[in-house]
Amino acid sequence: MTTKTAVSCLLLVTLLGTLLVTASGKPAAEKMKDTDRTAILTVLTTQQNDWNKGNISGFMAGYWNSTELTFAGTGGFTRGWQPVMERYRKSYADKAAMGTLDFQELEIRSLGPDAALVLGRWHLERRAGDVGGIFTLVLQRFPEGWRIVHDHTTQSPPENK
Amino acid sequence: MTTKTAVSCLLLVTLLGTLLVTASGKPAAEKMKDTDRTAILTVLTTQQNDWNKGNISGFMAGYWNSTELTFAGTGGFTRGWQPVMERYRKSYADKAAMGTLDFQELEIRSLGPDAALVLGRWHLERRAGDVGGIFTLVLQRFPEGWRIVHDHTTQSPPENK
Repeated sequence: MTTKTAVSCLLLVTLLGTLLVTASGKPAAEKMKDTDRTAILTVLTTQQNDWNKGNISGFMAGYWNSTELTFAGTGGFTRGWQPVMERYRKSYADKAAMGTLDFQELEIRSLGPDAALVLGRWHLERRAGDVGGIFTLVLQRFPEGWRIVHDHTTQSPPENK
Repeated sequence: MTTKTAVSCLLLVTLLGTLLVTASGKPAAEKMKDTDRTAILTVLTTQQNDWNKGNISGFMAGYWNSTELTFAGTGGFTRGWQPVMERYRKSYADKAAMGTLDFQELEIRSLGPDAALVLGRWHLERRAGDVGGIFTLVLQRFPEGWRIVHDHTTQSPPENK
């Protein structure tokens, strides 16, 4: 390969690289690191496992332990880690009411170096009747790891087909 | 004031400053600049004004014009700027159905230098009957300004008092 060809190749590779970054429509910094994606998925999987053991305080470990934590549900906003946990305990009084939780179709999006948006579906399999719906989670990175700082959960109306 | 007193004062002020930053529980970088807060409020106020003129495409200018825009509603997820607009046009066919929109109790939280979370309540005053509920908005900063990249809106069930 001549020097001229080598330079042309280098230019082409650089150009293609630039095009790829531009086509993505977002700055490179917004691409989420695999380690962050895995850490966030682990938070949610741990929540799911704790829920399915009937362990609400374990489930709550995925949330930011702060009076500023917010939960948006059918009844409006609930503010603070303790009130959010009490809401769960009230709505799901025992293991039968809690059923088996399954998070589905998770979509994790970066919102910068220390924040992420997670969308998904939830499904509770229960003897008394299944329920489910969709959720929006906002997570932030803390010294102790990624935690949910805001949760907006909607229950889907029963399907009429 | 002696040099010793001055040094003591300086130490005290530094200590108090550190305590204040620590007490807030978040790094200083997460405090939102007033200019960003104002810009985000302007996006929402413009949306409200456009809605109240019956101008849905104006209202849609507050959203990220991308196929990656997401809207979470009672019916599930809607993906992409165009489908989100079509959903609005279908749900609110004319100015009477659109009514008068009012955003209330807005809470704006920083998620880093280029992302923000907005919580609030919405209310539509209409002859056919008022409706309202709560919402979660995630905004990101783009070269053209702050835009909503995800919207989770819940309609509250009619109140029984």
